[in-house]
Amino acid sequence: MTSLTDQLRAIVGAPHVLTEGDLSAYEQDWRKRVHGKALAVVRPASTQEVAAVVRACAAAGTSLVPQGGNTGMVCGGVPDTSGRQVVLNLQRMKAVRGIDRDNMTMTVEAGCVLQAVQEAADAAGLFFPLSLAAEGSCTIGGNLATNAGGTQVVRYGNARELCLGLEVVNAQGETWDGLSGLRKDNTGYDLRDLFIGAEGTLGVITAATLKLYPKPAAALTAWAAIGSMADAVRLLEMAHLHLGAGLTGFEVMGQFALSLVTKHFPQQRVPFAAESPWGVLIENSDHESEAHARAQFEQLLEAAMEAGLVTDAVVAENIAQAHQLWHVRESIPLAQAQEGLNIKHDISVPISRIPAFCDETDALLRREIAGVRLVNFGHLGDGNLHYNVQAPEGGDAPKFLREQEARVNGIVHDQVAKFGGSISAEHGIGSLKVDKLPHYKSPVALSMMRAIKGALDPENVMNPGRVLHG
Amino acid sequence: MTSLTDQLRAIVGAPHVLTEGDLSAYEQDWRKRVHGKALAVVRPASTQEVAAVVRACAAAGTSLVPQGGNTGMVCGGVPDTSGRQVVLNLQRMKAVRGIDRDNMTMTVEAGCVLQAVQEAADAAGLFFPLSLAAEGSCTIGGNLATNAGGTQVVRYGNARELCLGLEVVNAQGETWDGLSGLRKDNTGYDLRDLFIGAEGTLGVITAATLKLYPKPAAALTAWAAIGSMADAVRLLEMAHLHLGAGLTGFEVMGQFALSLVTKHFPQQRVPFAAESPWGVLIENSDHESEAHARAQFEQLLEAAMEAGLVTDAVVAENIAQAHQLWHVRESIPLAQAQEGLNIKHDISVPISRIPAFCDETDALLRREIAGVRLVNFGHLGDGNLHYNVQAPEGGDAPKFLREQEARVNGIVHDQVAKFGGSISAEHGIGSLKVDKLPHYKSPVALSMMRAIKGALDPENVMNPGRVLHG
Repeated sequence: MTSLTDQLRAIVGAPHVLTEGDLSAYEQDWRKRVHGKALAVVRPASTQEVAAVVRACAAAGTSLVPQGGNTGMVCGGVPDTSGRQVVLNLQRMKAVRGIDRDNMTMTVEAGCVLQAVQEAADAAGLFFPLSLAAEGSCTIGGNLATNAGGTQVVRYGNARELCLGLEVVNAQGETWDGLSGLRKDNTGYDLRDLFIGAEGTLGVITAATLKLYPKPAAALTAWAAIGSMADAVRLLEMAHLHLGAGLTGFEVMGQFALSLVTKHFPQQRVPFAAESPWGVLIENSDHESEAHARAQFEQLLEAAMEAGLVTDAVVAENIAQAHQLWHVRESIPLAQAQEGLNIKHDISVPISRIPAFCDETDALLRREIAGVRLVNFGHLGDGNLHYNVQAPEGGDAPKFLREQEARVNGIVHDQVAKFGGSISAEHGIGSLKVDKLPHYKSPVALSMMRAIKGALDPENVMNPGRVLHG
Repeated sequence: MTSLTDQLRAIVGAPHVLTEGDLSAYEQDWRKRVHGKALAVVRPASTQEVAAVVRACAAAGTSLVPQGGNTGMVCGGVPDTSGRQVVLNLQRMKAVRGIDRDNMTMTVEAGCVLQAVQEAADAAGLFFPLSLAAEGSCTIGGNLATNAGGTQVVRYGNARELCLGLEVVNAQGETWDGLSGLRKDNTGYDLRDLFIGAEGTLGVITAATLKLYPKPAAALTAWAAIGSMADAVRLLEMAHLHLGAGLTGFEVMGQFALSLVTKHFPQQRVPFAAESPWGVLIENSDHESEAHARAQFEQLLEAAMEAGLVTDAVVAENIAQAHQLWHVRESIPLAQAQEGLNIKHDISVPISRIPAFCDETDALLRREIAGVRLVNFGHLGDGNLHYNVQAPEGGDAPKFLREQEARVNGIVHDQVAKFGGSISAEHGIGSLKVDKLPHYKSPVALSMMRAIKGALDPENVMNPGRVLHG
């Protein structure tokens, strides 16, 4: 009898079955919360190889952990510590299979890095809008498996909305060729959207057909100083009216989050840092011209100042200035890490309820934990906040996390539930939140999810214990 | 033992259980292709009543046919002829449960007529973009169950893309409250999109939370004369570049289709009817002003004329003229019906392949059936054509249908498959295409669909025999 690893070597070639040496790039999540141990890391080069690997593992009763760039936030793409799971890493499958300019679509393999997808679209004179901090290393397969969000969702939607078709190897090792360049196709159940966001628990995405858009003629960035979250919500509404579909980004950042950028990266210039409780970053993409975009922006900001919503504002004069503004926004997580360990939340709430959610939750946390510091920033245009909690100044951060993390999570997530929100807006469930899901998801939804998992993966081969308990 | 109809009367009240008299409004599809016979037509007034009806029917082993406005094209919402199915008509559930202006969402019950949804959004100063010919009588529940398309898909997507959350009564009679105003929520499998487009075979949609948009400041309509389908595709590409997200409609109409409008509705004025092989209707919605929309349109049409794509064009001067142009487009199906019975296809193909598809399929049909007349029109912006086949002039249309329908369907659908298209772009499968689906859908997809149906509706209570064979 041939061992499973020998079978895997026969399928993908011995150099692509890793069992020895430092495998931490595959076994550990990038935030270093989990260090698992794999039976093997398998790196197939084609859909046929993926299918054969799945069949071999299923026959051996060995479960698989699909993995892209291993940049996930919820420990959904690393193996457990049993040493009995196979990591199925898709990074060798990185071909751009084709770009159909007239159809405004492209078909790419799952292991294609997001930035490579963006660049291939750009080279064809088109635009792929998905954009997020990890774009230099995350893969499109991982983006789809987790339904990634990012900074352009207010205009273009999540990864889900940018995908027209999938190629998937299911838990039986069969290949479903659902690649399609169709914008309308009502021939049965929406399998595509079932695999998108399922985090590899129902099958492995091996390729996708993506929607492309015309390149904007110009994208301008503005920064506005705002007095309250309620005013930020009113400014968002005004931005929708003035900019229409030109509104491609609307980020909000609290004063304390911005003060950490100033503190840890003093070379960065944070506009209106001292006097303003909130900063808002707005992006206006225009299909006409930069001049038109600028005129639109000026009208919006004048109207917002007249309405008393914006106390001060600046529009980037050139691309370098725009990059500086975005760089401030993107430096918040790093500045936060410099400040010390913290408790992260990736939540969403209906936009209309965000001001009340923040007021009430801020007050609750401050009452419960003296001196607690709140790092609040995120994609207000989508109702998605990274509502993070930092230990009191000068305190012992590891001790704070040990003692307070569960309690803080409970307070924040209960508040999210009270306000009709989600405990995972864009990061997914993985293994990190799998214990919490049953407390916050409807029992009817959970039982339908379990029925679907049981129907499509009865042997629990695909990424067991993620999203749903095994 | 109480009979099922008595139980149903106890649940919804005797006046809302119809068993006698002329029930053809519920038992017959509006195109009068199928006349079924129901055990009873039940008209619940609340989600609780729907759930109780489903439980009673499931316990009695009686299957249910969910029904909205009964305007479907594929006989998916009328009972079979057995007299043993219960029609579950949702029209009494028509409340607008709420509009959240700051969140740009509204929550409506399934029986709400699409036009009432549009009007409620408008009254709140916002815009719900789903629009189709039956909007005065179809319901939003039916629109979602069939993932309706219509004329604004090029900008706003299908019904699927306009829905954030659902309330569903599943086949066990449990209520899933998945109503949600969240634009980002990655907490498990995408049940919402599974029920959308499932045509009532997995559960009954009872309410939905819908996305709203800012009202456009102006919507202008243009009509262009075009020499070929290939030029229409190039004009579409140019329209995307010039109008950006302002491009909200792009319809193409063949000369023969338009000649039927002139023939049967001579009071209508069809622009450039005599000299032009194709007419294209373009809608440009602008968030700034009518003047800006007009300037954009003029630039587009001038550029298209310079490029030799458009031989002549007119932009509507006012709303009345715009309505006239749209009215020509919307009169094609009626004119076609006046001309006599015909064989309809609701197909999609990648936009880039539409010219070759039409050339090849036209030639094939003309070679196979002497004198056949092709009525080709549709939503080119989405790659969706209503590619219809009319009997030869002066021929016996009923005889033509009897003798040729299966053959013509086979030719057209085989061509669709060859060009990577869909045999049902926006109408669904229902019972009309349930026999055809296995020929054109991947066996792997079908087996996953069957597994899902078996998992969520093991007793086959919900709309059996639709989408999948029972």
